[in-house]
Amino acid sequence: MKRREKRMEWNPPQILITTFLSLILLGTLILLLPISTTDGISFIDALFTSTSAMTVTGLVVVDTGTAFTYFGEIVIMMLIQLGGLGIMTFAVLIYLALGRKIGIRERLLIKQALNQNTIGGVIALAKRLLIFSLIMEAMAIVFLSLVWVPELGWGQGLYASVFHAISAFNNAGFSIWSDSLSGYVGDPVINIVITILFIIGGIGFTVVFDMWQSKEFRQVSLHSKLMIIGTLAINIFSFLMIFVLEYNNPNTLASMSTPDQIQSAYFQAVTPRTAGFNTLDIGSMEHASLFYMIILMFIGGGSASTAGGIKLTTAILIVLATFTFYKQREEVVTFKRSLPYSLVLRALSLAMGSVLVVLVAIFILNLTEDAPFLDIVFEGVSAFGTVGLSMGLTGSLTIIGKITIILTMLVGKLGPLTFAFAFAKHRIDRVKYPKEDVLTG
Amino acid sequence: MKRREKRMEWNPPQILITTFLSLILLGTLILLLPISTTDGISFIDALFTSTSAMTVTGLVVVDTGTAFTYFGEIVIMMLIQLGGLGIMTFAVLIYLALGRKIGIRERLLIKQALNQNTIGGVIALAKRLLIFSLIMEAMAIVFLSLVWVPELGWGQGLYASVFHAISAFNNAGFSIWSDSLSGYVGDPVINIVITILFIIGGIGFTVVFDMWQSKEFRQVSLHSKLMIIGTLAINIFSFLMIFVLEYNNPNTLASMSTPDQIQSAYFQAVTPRTAGFNTLDIGSMEHASLFYMIILMFIGGGSASTAGGIKLTTAILIVLATFTFYKQREEVVTFKRSLPYSLVLRALSLAMGSVLVVLVAIFILNLTEDAPFLDIVFEGVSAFGTVGLSMGLTGSLTIIGKITIILTMLVGKLGPLTFAFAFAKHRIDRVKYPKEDVLTG
Ligand SMILES: [K+]
Ligand SMILES: [K+]
Repeated sequence: MKRREKRMEWNPPQILITTFLSLILLGTLILLLPISTTDGISFIDALFTSTSAMTVTGLVVVDTGTAFTYFGEIVIMMLIQLGGLGIMTFAVLIYLALGRKIGIRERLLIKQALNQNTIGGVIALAKRLLIFSLIMEAMAIVFLSLVWVPELGWGQGLYASVFHAISAFNNAGFSIWSDSLSGYVGDPVINIVITILFIIGGIGFTVVFDMWQSKEFRQVSLHSKLMIIGTLAINIFSFLMIFVLEYNNPNTLASMSTPDQIQSAYFQAVTPRTAGFNTLDIGSMEHASLFYMIILMFIGGGSASTAGGIKLTTAILIVLATFTFYKQREEVVTFKRSLPYSLVLRALSLAMGSVLVVLVAIFILNLTEDAPFLDIVFEGVSAFGTVGLSMGLTGSLTIIGKITIILTMLVGKLGPLTFAFAFAKHRIDRVKYPKEDVLTG
Repeated sequence: MKRREKRMEWNPPQILITTFLSLILLGTLILLLPISTTDGISFIDALFTSTSAMTVTGLVVVDTGTAFTYFGEIVIMMLIQLGGLGIMTFAVLIYLALGRKIGIRERLLIKQALNQNTIGGVIALAKRLLIFSLIMEAMAIVFLSLVWVPELGWGQGLYASVFHAISAFNNAGFSIWSDSLSGYVGDPVINIVITILFIIGGIGFTVVFDMWQSKEFRQVSLHSKLMIIGTLAINIFSFLMIFVLEYNNPNTLASMSTPDQIQSAYFQAVTPRTAGFNTLDIGSMEHASLFYMIILMFIGGGSASTAGGIKLTTAILIVLATFTFYKQREEVVTFKRSLPYSLVLRALSLAMGSVLVVLVAIFILNLTEDAPFLDIVFEGVSAFGTVGLSMGLTGSLTIIGKITIILTMLVGKLGPLTFAFAFAKHRIDRVKYPKEDVLTG
């Protein structure tokens, strides 16, 4: 009997998922070592922390600053840098360091990770990405040190600067302080440096490089145009929303000075689209603000960035497609460019896949957690968008709740498409079927 | 100076909206008459009741059975029949009665209301629709009388049968009893007659007629196939979900006999997709069940039916399109038929428009109502899907809350597309733009 030869080659999404899972498991094992924690940690909590760091989410089941030793925190920092700056950049770097040529297979893998549409220039992009990121982090460390070294001394001050610079640039949202950056709600240096870091990290490297190389705005790619205009618009709108909604809230803005009100409303407006730091107490905010933040967390940042969510361009595309149909126009047009059908279908699939994942997560959490619905929805979307903001539920999650959040962070970070493509077989439609209409709405 | 002639002709969506609003206002004024209520009613409550009846939603700010006189209840019944069976069918009937020929303009209007894709045969369809509906309602009255006449006497029994038959067939969910049909949780006749009525009313007339005329399943249209299989699948799945989720809930299934458990789980599984009656206390159900029901309420029933929501076919199309993309296939194919791009875009636009409306409604309710998030989300989606189920928030809504729900019911009933098309101008894209890709996800 002849057996069909089984192809053992893995496709890029499979390699990406496997690498990610291996590193998370490695991180878990290291965090379980006595040297990592002050008082020990359970397997599930170590797994949760490792996943949260590697997916740059920032949800924590134990307080990072007190539960972990310096060694443990440095492990977390490294997982963040690995997961955020991208295991793919590292893969490239390793290949370069070993002097090996990068094959088509590896390039496809990187293409997948960076979400680049063309293979050409991926190596160059990866190199520039790494150098650029390290320079950004270094500059941030200098600025943050100006605040934290005088306050905490050289050792602690530098350490805090390094940790938060890496955490911010990678949109990880981990902090060594249990109240995140609430202690610096009115500090302009911290507010500006941290937000610039995570906005640049979260807008996508291609956009930054595109702006760098272009002399005029109209020279940049359509993608960059949408991201720049979109980011500005959503951040300004969100600032106004949070400011107005929280203005009379005695637990947040009402008791503050005007400069502090402006800074904290700004910070809380830009952080939900994946950064995950907070300077206000999330649990004390108005329900309307929290609901608005849930929408922001679901949207997320830019493609090929350290941010999560369905991505700002995906949301813009869906809105554009919707308006196109309502206007009874034929093609989705923006900035004098027509968007191909396949792209609209991709955006739709991505959004729908994401909605499904979030719905399932929220459903399970409703079964397992004895908590208000808003806290649960907030937690589920925060995990999926790898945001890390929480109304306070994370610490009291049940075991099944923790596993649900772990899986949600993973799918959120790698994207539902990666998981779907990892197991999908590409089939060519040989048979042509007649078209038929269906009633909708 | 030459002035451009202003075209005063209205397009079908504008006529539809205007007719609807006029009838709601008329209903409001009649309900404000002393003869309609036992103890008077405020303008906003009358407007709310009239809108709820005309949009066949069934959310109530005052208890229908005690606040209104028989006259008032009959007004509500007539509004339900007008809004549900369709003002369009009535429009046709009036034109026929007056012996006037139906022009292209009126047919377009009916086409819009019935959501039919071809103008031809709309008149015939409208006539058959009316006759079929009245026969269904008459048959139901006979069956319901078998239970209610012996129990309540001839007058009350017949009256209850007529009211609930009209309410059920039109998916209105209004009941003359404050606990809806909870008193008949274990009555097989009520359970079977009421659910068959609202399932047939909610699956869409075209599907019913299609089944009637076809000898075999494979002869029916693609739309009917999707609706029949989809309705069966979602109802069976929902029955199992509610049964399992509520099995240990002492406030719902746990204390019941097995036949009652099966009947009430079945009833509560099929009612959220627009019917809106209940035999279990909604507020006592598990959070996971309520969350699942929110999804069902958003999906709703069939097109060209008395049901609301984005419609089952819209949901199926979106899922099919998503899977098509994940499978990396070229065309959306189902039952050996290919679905055109415009249809996918329409489904996407409809779903997105609906999501936006629901999000805005929930956001406003979060601002104005002092209620748990779950109650608010449930109420908002119930209004949009014209379902009428409530966790108990409706009665205590603020004025702005009531106005929000009124507007949500209206947009939910007429559809976001109708409102968009009412104000959209059809523009032909003369300029052809080059295609450009954008990164997503
Ligand atoms: K984060
Ligand atoms: K209803």
